[in-house]
Amino acid sequence: MRAITIEPHFTRHAEGSVLISFGDTRVLVTASVEERLPPWLKGKGEGWVTAEYGMLPRATHTRGQREAAKGKQSGRTQEIQRLIGRSLRAVTDLKKLGERQITLDCDVIQADGGTRTAAISGAFVALRIAVNKLMAQGLIKEDPITAQVAAVSCGIHQGTPVLDLDYIEDSGADADANFVLLSNGNIAEAQATAEGATYDEEGLLRLLRLARIGCNQIFEAQLKAIG
Amino acid sequence: MRAITIEPHFTRHAEGSVLISFGDTRVLVTASVEERLPPWLKGKGEGWVTAEYGMLPRATHTRGQREAAKGKQSGRTQEIQRLIGRSLRAVTDLKKLGERQITLDCDVIQADGGTRTAAISGAFVALRIAVNKLMAQGLIKEDPITAQVAAVSCGIHQGTPVLDLDYIEDSGADADANFVLLSNGNIAEAQATAEGATYDEEGLLRLLRLARIGCNQIFEAQLKAIG
Amino acid sequence: MRAITIEPHFTRHAEGSVLISFGDTRVLVTASVEERLPPWLKGKGEGWVTAEYGMLPRATHTRGQREAAKGKQSGRTQEIQRLIGRSLRAVTDLKKLGERQITLDCDVIQADGGTRTAAISGAFVALRIAVNKLMAQGLIKEDPITAQVAAVSCGIHQGTPVLDLDYIEDSGADADANFVLLSNGNIAEAQATAEGATYDEEGLLRLLRLARIGCNQIFEAQLKAIG
Amino acid sequence: MRAITIEPHFTRHAEGSVLISFGDTRVLVTASVEERLPPWLKGKGEGWVTAEYGMLPRATHTRGQREAAKGKQSGRTQEIQRLIGRSLRAVTDLKKLGERQITLDCDVIQADGGTRTAAISGAFVALRIAVNKLMAQGLIKEDPITAQVAAVSCGIHQGTPVLDLDYIEDSGADADANFVLLSNGNIAEAQATAEGATYDEEGLLRLLRLARIGCNQIFEAQLKAIG
Amino acid sequence: MRAITIEPHFTRHAEGSVLISFGDTRVLVTASVEERLPPWLKGKGEGWVTAEYGMLPRATHTRGQREAAKGKQSGRTQEIQRLIGRSLRAVTDLKKLGERQITLDCDVIQADGGTRTAAISGAFVALRIAVNKLMAQGLIKEDPITAQVAAVSCGIHQGTPVLDLDYIEDSGADADANFVLLSNGNIAEAQATAEGATYDEEGLLRLLRLARIGCNQIFEAQLKAIG
Amino acid sequence: MRAITIEPHFTRHAEGSVLISFGDTRVLVTASVEERLPPWLKGKGEGWVTAEYGMLPRATHTRGQREAAKGKQSGRTQEIQRLIGRSLRAVTDLKKLGERQITLDCDVIQADGGTRTAAISGAFVALRIAVNKLMAQGLIKEDPITAQVAAVSCGIHQGTPVLDLDYIEDSGADADANFVLLSNGNIAEAQATAEGATYDEEGLLRLLRLARIGCNQIFEAQLKAIG
Repeated sequence: MRAITIEPHFTRHAEGSVLISFGDTRVLVTASVEERLPPWLKGKGEGWVTAEYGMLPRATHTRGQREAAKGKQSGRTQEIQRLIGRSLRAVTDLKKLGERQITLDCDVIQADGGTRTAAISGAFVALRIAVNKLMAQGLIKEDPITAQVAAVSCGIHQGTPVLDLDYIEDSGADADANFVLLSNGNIAEAQATAEGATYDEEGLLRLLRLARIGCNQIFEAQLKAIG
Repeated sequence: MRAITIEPHFTRHAEGSVLISFGDTRVLVTASVEERLPPWLKGKGEGWVTAEYGMLPRATHTRGQREAAKGKQSGRTQEIQRLIGRSLRAVTDLKKLGERQITLDCDVIQADGGTRTAAISGAFVALRIAVNKLMAQGLIKEDPITAQVAAVSCGIHQGTPVLDLDYIEDSGADADANFVLLSNGNIAEAQATAEGATYDEEGLLRLLRLARIGCNQIFEAQLKAIG
Repeated sequence: MRAITIEPHFTRHAEGSVLISFGDTRVLVTASVEERLPPWLKGKGEGWVTAEYGMLPRATHTRGQREAAKGKQSGRTQEIQRLIGRSLRAVTDLKKLGERQITLDCDVIQADGGTRTAAISGAFVALRIAVNKLMAQGLIKEDPITAQVAAVSCGIHQGTPVLDLDYIEDSGADADANFVLLSNGNIAEAQATAEGATYDEEGLLRLLRLARIGCNQIFEAQLKAIG
Repeated sequence: MRAITIEPHFTRHAEGSVLISFGDTRVLVTASVEERLPPWLKGKGEGWVTAEYGMLPRATHTRGQREAAKGKQSGRTQEIQRLIGRSLRAVTDLKKLGERQITLDCDVIQADGGTRTAAISGAFVALRIAVNKLMAQGLIKEDPITAQVAAVSCGIHQGTPVLDLDYIEDSGADADANFVLLSNGNIAEAQATAEGATYDEEGLLRLLRLARIGCNQIFEAQLKAIG
Repeated sequence: MRAITIEPHFTRHAEGSVLISFGDTRVLVTASVEERLPPWLKGKGEGWVTAEYGMLPRATHTRGQREAAKGKQSGRTQEIQRLIGRSLRAVTDLKKLGERQITLDCDVIQADGGTRTAAISGAFVALRIAVNKLMAQGLIKEDPITAQVAAVSCGIHQGTPVLDLDYIEDSGADADANFVLLSNGNIAEAQATAEGATYDEEGLLRLLRLARIGCNQIFEAQLKAIG
Repeated sequence: MRAITIEPHFTRHAEGSVLISFGDTRVLVTASVEERLPPWLKGKGEGWVTAEYGMLPRATHTRGQREAAKGKQSGRTQEIQRLIGRSLRAVTDLKKLGERQITLDCDVIQADGGTRTAAISGAFVALRIAVNKLMAQGLIKEDPITAQVAAVSCGIHQGTPVLDLDYIEDSGADADANFVLLSNGNIAEAQATAEGATYDEEGLLRLLRLARIGCNQIFEAQLKAIG
């Protein structure tokens, strides 16, 4: 596992914000609380947690085209932001959140593999800070957050299971997995994709166990950042 | 597992085509062979297999907006078509395919849960038919297809693992998984998402074993359809 | 005239649906009833009938780009769906329909010339089935449908007027016409376009008379399908 | 028939240009000659004639949204510009034109019914002027224009056939037709649409004969403008 | 300064309209009054003045792509229409205008440099005419227009300051400035851009003084056009 | 003038990068060198410097919509990125740069007024670092950078000229100006806009002189950051 750092309160306007690093991967996450809801949720007495993901054009080794200039978000971007939103909702009681929306904006400042897992792990801290603020203001009575959530990538690289792949390892991996785990031991999401070679049940379990080790380290770093 | 039917040669222009049904879910898949490649693959001596997915506006219980009229494909659509493409590439040796592209168009005529897994399972047959044609014409020397691939959804519904969820079961499931499996026993893709309640390692394994049962039935239906 | 087949109730969710074939041209049409109206029609005490048209990417001899992926509908698509909508409204009393909208989705599964005329002819049956359902439910008191409507293409091919052109004939025609006719003998729409050579008044009349012969056969097939 | 005026050479950069008026309808048409071709026509030894149509936002009684701001052209706009292009190609021998493209831009300055027919009638003059220039420069040897082309709308208004409908008449017409006619007596395009009430064969012929009277006046005005 | 002509009432539907020419540059401006407001201004007891800008495809020496066909407005177009709107608001008391919106549509018929300054100068006249109409109808009590506004370009061409640059001068200018001035002597907007060589404070002042001379001529032409 | 800090080498992949702060405004700028050119510049023996600008959704007090999600860049964004590009080109000899493109990506992490001027001032440092690298590698022979460039905003706030306005001052300013100045004393761009009240020549000069004071401080900070 590469060095994890989580710098809370990185920006000042957002209700919650962190700069999270997994090695050279750095993601800025802000949590924005808004007293409005998507149309299909109005009047149901519950809130919503959602996420958006972006990568600065030169976060990567070579410059990529700016999605705003291209006029659309790639399939990859949409897939990632849907995953982040689902992961955070897995630890949020939307009824207790009340009729408000929290949006997690995850913007990759620098990329070296694992941007989606860093985003999820950082987003939890930003969400926790924002919810703490709402509770301190008396706007929320009961804590809607039910557990910590963190994510890590792992893969099979030249036959060996590897935790938290950087860009070089990721590009050459035979299988590439992302696990979103809860501090209570449960799984929120498991995704394991064969790239070069397919894998078997035993391989899947070894990746999951590796992910648990990684997530436990992230849970600690999250607690330290929240203070 | 709901009744599986695979009707090959459903349309006449495509190099391969099937109408596949998983119960009331019906997907039309065509395989189109084109002697051209995406720009980033030119001159590398290998081919490409890709997929596109769509749902007719009234495939569902209530009419959805036509994506062509909206002017963009939803995140869900893009996520699914990326999954289908990856799944088919997991059983294709792109070098042996040669410098050509095969596009699998998966269009959902009627939806009742499991459209993406039906699409993958049907796309394999359409691909197989198209590749057979290329081999019969002498355009491909060695068979580029290395195994059968099939997919099935499963989930935990009211505490019980269920195979091949229909729309009602899917909407109420606590966890929702899709497994893409190979006829050689390996896994091409595992995706398991907590909806209502998160799940544990044991739950993940039970879902995987259920999926194996389902995929074995699909492998048989595929062989029958190919003839 | 090529063989006409109309298979009603082809899909199960839509209020009305048919699979119509004119020879190798096959179009799936669904009629969706919605208790909502376009904004400019609200509160006027009448309903609306509209249509959308699409072609599956490999309905044609060579694969065309998916309009949803391109991000816009072609001029041809828009022209055709406007024509279908107008044709159906020509036989619908919108006051009697009441404040609801019926959308006819016409999706071409396989194309061999005459897709727009098959779409109109099939859409009438889907609309008739949907309206019958509304009347059986007591939601509509008086039948809003005033006549049958059908359409057929015809053209001048190598000097000879031809009815219901297939793709080969259509590509080589000097003039290409589409007539939308009513079972009461009237004309809802006449469109005749010179392709290679222009035509004269006598030519226009010969095409119209040919179209009448074709539409009479379609009217019969419609009645049989409705039962 | 409303007063027709055609003012040639209205702008100075285009190879051909006119401001045409049918009563209060005023359309500016420019013909642009470019030594390039659409990709699908390259290397075939022939040229192309195409058209684009637009309406200034306040050409109409109430302001319409600017299509450039909306980010797409309406179905109506696309239908009209396809019709204009076809009509001009009906009188152009593309082989004699040589490997170049002429684009007719038809922009409606003021609208009072009949904008598409005024556009076609004016576009012929702009095309004629541009082609004359190419012939004077020796870039074209033989005249590629085979006849004059003009268009006029007509309709059945309160039971009476009316020629060249203005906006008020058009809005209330039972049937609305556009005829594109050639100076040699032939028909390039006939389009007759039932609005309120459908019409019969006799009605269609009466409209066509009325259109002939109108087009003959336009042919004269075109000749005067070309000089 | 090139010859200025302002032809009021050029079109008949708009509440105000002019065709303004600065030499060969000709811009058609219409003012549309609408009893509606942008959402963020509702219920504040004041109105809004805004502008849209477009250039006909063949207004220029060579044909440019139609923005409606491209599906988006260029950065240049958006920059110009924002400038026009700001300039007109600089002389409008939005409270006195009342809860209505006036949109100035500026469409370039022919371009030879200075299209944005001609647009601003003409838009003032169209606005004045439209406001006069509102006052005559008793819809506005007190005149909301506080001064005349006009704009002119100037630049440094081969070392010499030049007023009202045409296309050739503009293309070769070292510095290119646009000034929006008020009839009371004040400045609404100053924009001076170095193209080839940068300039100094003295240069800026010389350009400003030149602009004053030009704007004074435009103020006179505006008054004459308003009558 | 608020505190200026420029942190060079903030990210590691880009050829040049800085994080620049003007008080609470923080902009991340990267310079990307690419051995390719825009199509219209190919084969002319010179290079290109361009810029793109973006604002993270929660850089501001309340969350703004993500431009990539909206599918287009606002007029404001396009105006700013055009200004940044022009400003950098004003101090770059494109011939000496050679046939390559340098793109300055300016992404606002936190906004408190003056984001465009901070972007320009930081972009100069990122460009300088990237060009130094190209010179050290021997890819560029002669230094193409001819002077330092910096930008600062100033305005008239409650009658008093103010330098480097923060968000609160900017919102309430009567006039709002941005000056792009060179270290040799010249002006690259002057833009002064009346917001509440228009201004006179004397006002323009006072703003310019204030800007000079601010830019001199920025020039020093730039030199310190470059080292």
